[in-house]
Amino acid sequence: MGVHPQLNKNGELQHLLTTEGLPVAILHHILDTAESFAGVTERDVKKIPLLRGKSVFNLFFEPSTRTRTTFEIAAKRLSADVINLNMAVSSQTKGETLLDTVNNLSAMHADMFVVRHNQSGAAHLIARHVGPEIHVINAGDGWHAHPTQALLDMFTIRRYKQDFRALRVAIIGDILHSRVARSQIHALTTLGVPEIRVIAPKTLLPARVERLGVHVYHNMTQGLQDVDVLMMLRLQHERMESAHLPSTEEYFKYYGLTPEKLMLAKSDAIVMHPGPMNRGVEIDSEVADGSQSVILPQVGFGIAVRMAVMSILAGN
Amino acid sequence: MGVHPQLNKNGELQHLLTTEGLPVAILHHILDTAESFAGVTERDVKKIPLLRGKSVFNLFFEPSTRTRTTFEIAAKRLSADVINLNMAVSSQTKGETLLDTVNNLSAMHADMFVVRHNQSGAAHLIARHVGPEIHVINAGDGWHAHPTQALLDMFTIRRYKQDFRALRVAIIGDILHSRVARSQIHALTTLGVPEIRVIAPKTLLPARVERLGVHVYHNMTQGLQDVDVLMMLRLQHERMESAHLPSTEEYFKYYGLTPEKLMLAKSDAIVMHPGPMNRGVEIDSEVADGSQSVILPQVGFGIAVRMAVMSILAGN
Amino acid sequence: MGVHPQLNKNGELQHLLTTEGLPVAILHHILDTAESFAGVTERDVKKIPLLRGKSVFNLFFEPSTRTRTTFEIAAKRLSADVINLNMAVSSQTKGETLLDTVNNLSAMHADMFVVRHNQSGAAHLIARHVGPEIHVINAGDGWHAHPTQALLDMFTIRRYKQDFRALRVAIIGDILHSRVARSQIHALTTLGVPEIRVIAPKTLLPARVERLGVHVYHNMTQGLQDVDVLMMLRLQHERMESAHLPSTEEYFKYYGLTPEKLMLAKSDAIVMHPGPMNRGVEIDSEVADGSQSVILPQVGFGIAVRMAVMSILAGN
Repeated sequence: MGVHPQLNKNGELQHLLTTEGLPVAILHHILDTAESFAGVTERDVKKIPLLRGKSVFNLFFEPSTRTRTTFEIAAKRLSADVINLNMAVSSQTKGETLLDTVNNLSAMHADMFVVRHNQSGAAHLIARHVGPEIHVINAGDGWHAHPTQALLDMFTIRRYKQDFRALRVAIIGDILHSRVARSQIHALTTLGVPEIRVIAPKTLLPARVERLGVHVYHNMTQGLQDVDVLMMLRLQHERMESAHLPSTEEYFKYYGLTPEKLMLAKSDAIVMHPGPMNRGVEIDSEVADGSQSVILPQVGFGIAVRMAVMSILAGN
Repeated sequence: MGVHPQLNKNGELQHLLTTEGLPVAILHHILDTAESFAGVTERDVKKIPLLRGKSVFNLFFEPSTRTRTTFEIAAKRLSADVINLNMAVSSQTKGETLLDTVNNLSAMHADMFVVRHNQSGAAHLIARHVGPEIHVINAGDGWHAHPTQALLDMFTIRRYKQDFRALRVAIIGDILHSRVARSQIHALTTLGVPEIRVIAPKTLLPARVERLGVHVYHNMTQGLQDVDVLMMLRLQHERMESAHLPSTEEYFKYYGLTPEKLMLAKSDAIVMHPGPMNRGVEIDSEVADGSQSVILPQVGFGIAVRMAVMSILAGN
Repeated sequence: MGVHPQLNKNGELQHLLTTEGLPVAILHHILDTAESFAGVTERDVKKIPLLRGKSVFNLFFEPSTRTRTTFEIAAKRLSADVINLNMAVSSQTKGETLLDTVNNLSAMHADMFVVRHNQSGAAHLIARHVGPEIHVINAGDGWHAHPTQALLDMFTIRRYKQDFRALRVAIIGDILHSRVARSQIHALTTLGVPEIRVIAPKTLLPARVERLGVHVYHNMTQGLQDVDVLMMLRLQHERMESAHLPSTEEYFKYYGLTPEKLMLAKSDAIVMHPGPMNRGVEIDSEVADGSQSVILPQVGFGIAVRMAVMSILAGN
């Protein structure tokens, strides 16, 4: 599959593995399709038969109730059969290799694998391995990518801000360990956002992050000036306890989003968060529940975006 | 929602949280509706499309395979999509608050939450918090309430004894820690049962239990005299091991239901138990499997009652 | 039920518990029915309504993601409602007996139980206990039987070799602890295979295994001579660590299937394995992935065979 591991030879989406290198036309196609599904989830009867008779396997090598649930709901609303496999406790422990496991599930005539794995590249590995009738969706691999999260974020921005080409966007928090941030930066860049900022302490930034085309800030006062969109990141508990941070109180003081800091952004700026939130660590409750927060709408859009990705893949 | 936290402004059932204060007309409506579903589960094709396109979330913060299964079956027979969430191992452990979790699931366009929690009031808290399009069913909260269990018990009594207003009912066992007993007492009272007895050692009775309108007995010989219905309670293992009881042998000797003790009740008395049973602790196998036992029919009625509650909620 | 615990009084399949004593006509009926489903799983829409409205309970007292998944897929493709019960962590731990658990699930109007248990005879016990409207499928009990695995193996052999009555078949590995091997031997015998060989070290063979009508070999060089079908067994990790074997390297040297050893068999011999494979222990990767391996097709046939068994049971 060469340069574009996620496209088929007609240039259509075969797998969704990363937002990096995803053509802008496909990005727009996903967002437009999601727009039509955003209505479905608000209708009284939420089921549509697009994936009827298809089998979607949730392969979660790393536990995540929330993300697994959103994919399960999306697939069921498309009338697919969903098989949840908690791979952390399954035949992996019987000594079988990852690819033997995948071969076996493929032989059960799976149509789609939704893969979460703590190792970067796991979804790519599986996608390279399966036959052309199977589609792989990366639901988060190590620190690498989480494309459906980034896509639902793009959907949210488009809903509230329309034109990507006039925006100043800030991503705030633990960029270093965040697959969400990487996927957001690639998607924002492709969609033509002229100014992407990252705001984080040095210990939570990847080396040479500027190469991704972002502007680096180490303090909120400068970084939030006149931004249209604030994308908060979740601070992982393991980071809090490690040498990366002095304390969560310190972190909140400098990088926690308070009403005061939010006032530095444009008055109509929106606040986003991928969840689950650490209130009082990366975000103040007053902001999380405030009028500029679009955190809960994001969740609903997440279902629509995942339905869109699944239905596009199933059609290609 | 004021006095009736589970009714909407038209006086219809919005949530099912407790049998306390539940209007008698609604109680009868649930039992009548369940009667129609009791037939469905015996039909060859058990599916009816009343909840098609609806999403029912089982939120079990406390594990219970049996109760979760009955709700899952009830929802699937109504054609709903069911999402099982084992909340004990999910994002709660990631530090998210209960209400943030509920907000997130609501944003996924849930229609119904079935909630089990080891803290009294958890289902009420969630019900007060969600929007009007979401219905909450309490599947057991702490020592407080377990309304669907009480409703299936009422359904069972009505099936075998018809008129509630002519009955003498005894509830036997660990009343103190039992959400089932509390919900039974409220339902029996509302349905007009003239004499409700509780039979238990003093250490397993709540303070001032008489205020609930029940007659208190500390021995079976007196308590079982001429009763029509015997509602046994499960003795929790943790109680057996605590200071509340000398030993399970002692308990069985004084409060275990044996064929001899059962003869003190009316000759056509029925024996009920919410399960799972501790044979040889609160009930003798000869009684559990005997001709007066309606313990297994209770289970089937439980599906019908849960289908009734779900379909009534979905229609309001 | 007497001589044939799995047949009803009309001689039809009421339960599938073992391949031992299963009449050859029923064996062929299952294989023929599976043939029609093997097509379904390759069709675009895989769902057929044969079990619509039926409730299939997966009762797994022993964890097995893979086997549970194949039954779940088979049932869903037949449009059944599937309830997965991880019995290892459910009310069994609350002190309820196995038969009380089964009684309760039966009272929920279950139609089919798929049972896996680490004790031989568990599925038989349940089958003897349930009413005539419930069908039990043994998904593996102790060292005793695993009939659907054996049936999918027979289906595989028939696909590639057509006539059972002209075959030399070798079963290789830990026969002693293998319910798969026992079920294979009974099925092969009934289907008229004239020569069944078992190849294993003495410590991994049951006492007096010849009574089953098999020829015993202790080395591959003699045992593989001119065979048509090689049925490898999985070497359980617990055996590797026990006194039964010196080391996995030793085992591989003598009993591991390598390309060299495979050349002793007929040139068109097929290689089978029930999975999950221990590459480099009982089988070399070159053989597992080689042109004579039919290990992956076996998995797909497993879905078709399980659909066949379920639909035949539901019709009787």
